[in-house]
Amino acid sequence: MQIGICGLGTVGSGAFNLISGNGQEMKRRIGRELTIAQVGCRRDHPDCDLSSTNVTRDIFDVVKNPEVDIVLELIGGTDDALKLVMEAISNKKHVVTANKALIAEHGDEIFGAASKRGVQVRFEAAIAGGIPIVKAIREGLAANRVEWVAGIINGTSNYILTEMSEPGRNLAFADVLKDAQDLGYAEADPTFDVEGIDAAHKLTILSSIAFGVPLRFDAIYTEGISGITSEDIGYARELGYTIRHLGVTRNLEDSVELRVHPCLVANSHMLAQVNGVMNAVMVGSDAAGATMYYGAGAGSGPTASAVLGDVIDIVRTDGVHSVANLGFMPETLEPKRVMEIQEFEGSAYLRLVVSDEPGVMARISTILGQYKISIEALIQKDARGGDAHVVIITNSVLEKSLNDAMQELAGLDETKGDIARIRVADFS
Amino acid sequence: MQIGICGLGTVGSGAFNLISGNGQEMKRRIGRELTIAQVGCRRDHPDCDLSSTNVTRDIFDVVKNPEVDIVLELIGGTDDALKLVMEAISNKKHVVTANKALIAEHGDEIFGAASKRGVQVRFEAAIAGGIPIVKAIREGLAANRVEWVAGIINGTSNYILTEMSEPGRNLAFADVLKDAQDLGYAEADPTFDVEGIDAAHKLTILSSIAFGVPLRFDAIYTEGISGITSEDIGYARELGYTIRHLGVTRNLEDSVELRVHPCLVANSHMLAQVNGVMNAVMVGSDAAGATMYYGAGAGSGPTASAVLGDVIDIVRTDGVHSVANLGFMPETLEPKRVMEIQEFEGSAYLRLVVSDEPGVMARISTILGQYKISIEALIQKDARGGDAHVVIITNSVLEKSLNDAMQELAGLDETKGDIARIRVADFS
Repeated sequence: MQIGICGLGTVGSGAFNLISGNGQEMKRRIGRELTIAQVGCRRDHPDCDLSSTNVTRDIFDVVKNPEVDIVLELIGGTDDALKLVMEAISNKKHVVTANKALIAEHGDEIFGAASKRGVQVRFEAAIAGGIPIVKAIREGLAANRVEWVAGIINGTSNYILTEMSEPGRNLAFADVLKDAQDLGYAEADPTFDVEGIDAAHKLTILSSIAFGVPLRFDAIYTEGISGITSEDIGYARELGYTIRHLGVTRNLEDSVELRVHPCLVANSHMLAQVNGVMNAVMVGSDAAGATMYYGAGAGSGPTASAVLGDVIDIVRTDGVHSVANLGFMPETLEPKRVMEIQEFEGSAYLRLVVSDEPGVMARISTILGQYKISIEALIQKDARGGDAHVVIITNSVLEKSLNDAMQELAGLDETKGDIARIRVADFS
Repeated sequence: MQIGICGLGTVGSGAFNLISGNGQEMKRRIGRELTIAQVGCRRDHPDCDLSSTNVTRDIFDVVKNPEVDIVLELIGGTDDALKLVMEAISNKKHVVTANKALIAEHGDEIFGAASKRGVQVRFEAAIAGGIPIVKAIREGLAANRVEWVAGIINGTSNYILTEMSEPGRNLAFADVLKDAQDLGYAEADPTFDVEGIDAAHKLTILSSIAFGVPLRFDAIYTEGISGITSEDIGYARELGYTIRHLGVTRNLEDSVELRVHPCLVANSHMLAQVNGVMNAVMVGSDAAGATMYYGAGAGSGPTASAVLGDVIDIVRTDGVHSVANLGFMPETLEPKRVMEIQEFEGSAYLRLVVSDEPGVMARISTILGQYKISIEALIQKDARGGDAHVVIITNSVLEKSLNDAMQELAGLDETKGDIARIRVADFS
């Protein structure tokens, strides 16, 4: 089987070089050599020696090329990528992609077409870079009923939170973001990463392959890390928690939880140990229990490793005898309501700034009590200008009740500015 | 394809119940139902309803049964298990086993026979229970040159070390072992676990599937945890380390490191966070970098999850279009010298008990200096009866030089009893 590469950026160049660099090692594993029939790219990549490669400037040449059996879609974006992938499929070519947005938003259409044509569409590289998490869920845990998945699946956000958590430095989000941009860990426009959209794409896919439900990017709850302050990180630490940006999905009786937001994670939890740009995904399943998968979530080498792992799978199974695209037979995908975030039940961290007057704690407690919210932990500290910070960890409570209580708390004369709320991780 | 189960102990009963309990979920994934043609067991298991199952008291009936396509070898041990597996293969049945000793000691013979007969032998459950580590290495990382593997692969040892590490309790190995036995975490005869033999079996297999080298259980260096004291754990903690029992294998230019022993692991390292009976395996590879796989290493559910994951793979690939047994084409397995432990180079923790006399530190340093061993960290503390404890972390040094230096140190008039030596983890 021959490979056509579309896109020669960070991932494409990594894949190209990995095929030449580790070609012999791969041949030892799969018994044949992987060959590149054609590369489609707008411009050559300085790290790639293309002198003996058939290069075209039109990526659509690659999906038309009769020599190409497996198309690597590594151009990114969703418009051209969708056209390219659909044309590859209609030409009966297998597709390997690293494109999370494409799969999360157009996966149903793509997989439908692929099933009809009898080709595979693989996307290990779309989630958590070099960590074979798609394989672990679709295959390694295939005997299990998966109950939940929780992961640190955006390296940029995790890097920023880790830096902000450096004890004693009290760095602000904006400053760390600027450092991350200078270091190449964050894009010039960081919205996709820091507002949780990238993580939402990935979690959408994880949820489908874990539970056998259709892709529901339209219904995911998404919150990023731009509202997290160094004060929140400090108070969380005092209470025994680390703040991490998580994607959490859970399979319930009649709905699916699908949410991406910052979380307080107990320091003793494995996910609290995941620092910097690293990713980790924990999977709760009925037979295996909780298993976790950790590694680099991005970068040329790790992503290329995942792309070529998929290629090798297609070659080893002759492109036929393999796994359904979402890990479940398409006709058994079970449409399920995605839970509204207001229905979510869990504990939360609240931080209020109040004027430090007698009776203010009594008024706060009274409001919480009216909504049957009890206080699991509390910190009160003097802040600047006669203000006080009140930090509360609530018991497990319906989000709607908490919203209502927060609105009343915000209406108190003593309350200044917005109340911070961060959910507490509730899986183990 | 129909399944025959041999052995209905912890793992066999788990597999039996998982097939019935999650049969529908598995059917959604693979498009067909898994059926059990026959169960061979010495006695029924109280957790299994065998009323509609063909049960035999002779496990060899199962491998002769023409209805059986996949044999689950879950009897343990190596004598009967080897006979059973070889007969299953010669009857052209696929084999799934949880038996690490069988694969580590007789794998070459078994895989050779399986290749000839065109059947598969799968052993995900032999290593790290419910963690799909064999799949991750043979498939997920198949595009990589694997450089090293380091893992906590014996839950009993990790449980004992974790308990011994409880701050302030200073528990002795023997006492924690007894607790572990009472809790069912350790066998009545704990030798296999606490002396490292079980971990050596697993590491032998990991090394082969990582590097494509023949199974070399005969050449592995094995050391258990029975010599670890609570004092060592306390000193390690003062120096920023946790003591863990690791299997480490590394692919070098002209040899392979293959060693199982206690290690000092830096507290900031992910493997230092793995507590209790949990397992974790870290894999260093050239493209993906370091990835880690964490979960329950034993128990009925996790092991059954791995066994049935293998069964599902065989069914999905129709027993043919799949992965070579050791992940590499048999003819490409590369025999390599296994490094003698004396050739190993790394830093080490040493603990000496000396009579607290003037000049003793000078004599110790002089001896170390003669062997060009420098001191990276040092603790000296008064101990009972006018003795002192001297704890040293050396620089990276050839094990042979360190042995010689330790022999001279042991010969000093001031030295009392044996010198403790624990290697320091040297991967990242």
